[in-house]
Amino acid sequence: MSFIIRQGQKEDMKNVMRLIKELALFEKLPKEVEITEEDLINDGFSDNPRFMTFVAEEKNEIIGAALFYERYSTWKGRVIHLEDLIVTEQKRGFGVGIALYKSVLKHGYDLGVKRVVWDVLSWNNNAIDFYKSTGATVLDDWQVVHMREDALKNFIENK
Amino acid sequence: MSFIIRQGQKEDMKNVMRLIKELALFEKLPKEVEITEEDLINDGFSDNPRFMTFVAEEKNEIIGAALFYERYSTWKGRVIHLEDLIVTEQKRGFGVGIALYKSVLKHGYDLGVKRVVWDVLSWNNNAIDFYKSTGATVLDDWQVVHMREDALKNFIENK
Repeated sequence: MSFIIRQGQKEDMKNVMRLIKELALFEKLPKEVEITEEDLINDGFSDNPRFMTFVAEEKNEIIGAALFYERYSTWKGRVIHLEDLIVTEQKRGFGVGIALYKSVLKHGYDLGVKRVVWDVLSWNNNAIDFYKSTGATVLDDWQVVHMREDALKNFIENK
Repeated sequence: MSFIIRQGQKEDMKNVMRLIKELALFEKLPKEVEITEEDLINDGFSDNPRFMTFVAEEKNEIIGAALFYERYSTWKGRVIHLEDLIVTEQKRGFGVGIALYKSVLKHGYDLGVKRVVWDVLSWNNNAIDFYKSTGATVLDDWQVVHMREDALKNFIENK
């Protein structure tokens, strides 16, 4: 199998949206996806883009994508956050995911960021083993907290 | 005790840096702080600011700060990440932290973001109980992964 990795363009967002929906369906949470192709274009390609993507392309078909952006650490300054890395189901096991992973890390390395970070499902041992094999560290003492839209509305309006 | 919450300005970054260092010293990791006041000014007050702050001020003295920025969810779009919330040790217990917390949530609410997120130390039960009492959800099935600068360099240069 032969594919290339390149930066995602506006024209790719339709396919990136397809991959996002494919993953959500696989995770049995398709209704959680509230964004649209138009949102991706508006948010990723304005004067102040909120994310960047790399896409994997095989014979003019997008078979995978990584979406990432910068965060800011009060200890380290600029860091990269890898938000999502998706490879379409039929194309897994051919190194597409690793190539996308490496492209994001290389991008962070070239920018000179002090850290690249992401979240992993705690039961996903294959992923955790892979990340560790590349030198990443899984933090055992931190948990992720979400204030969701409805709870946010309730807290601000009623407390 | 009487204090106000307002948006942090360039001139406040000296004091924000002092709070960041105070917290790192408390956590016994002062050498982990690599950023400087100048970095905070350059990174937070350019044409494309990488974070925003709210500060708590009592009698012209900065006694607390919250630092946050936008992230991007492939399901929800724009979300706010609360990176750090610090109250100087002698001023804890007077509601300064809660006021800063509420100011960040209110900012997210006004922006119309779908979610405000942050990380918490898993043994910090007081914080977790507080967050839950405000309607936040602690995710049990996600872990944070870091690829640190030295590991990143090693991975890109040698693998």
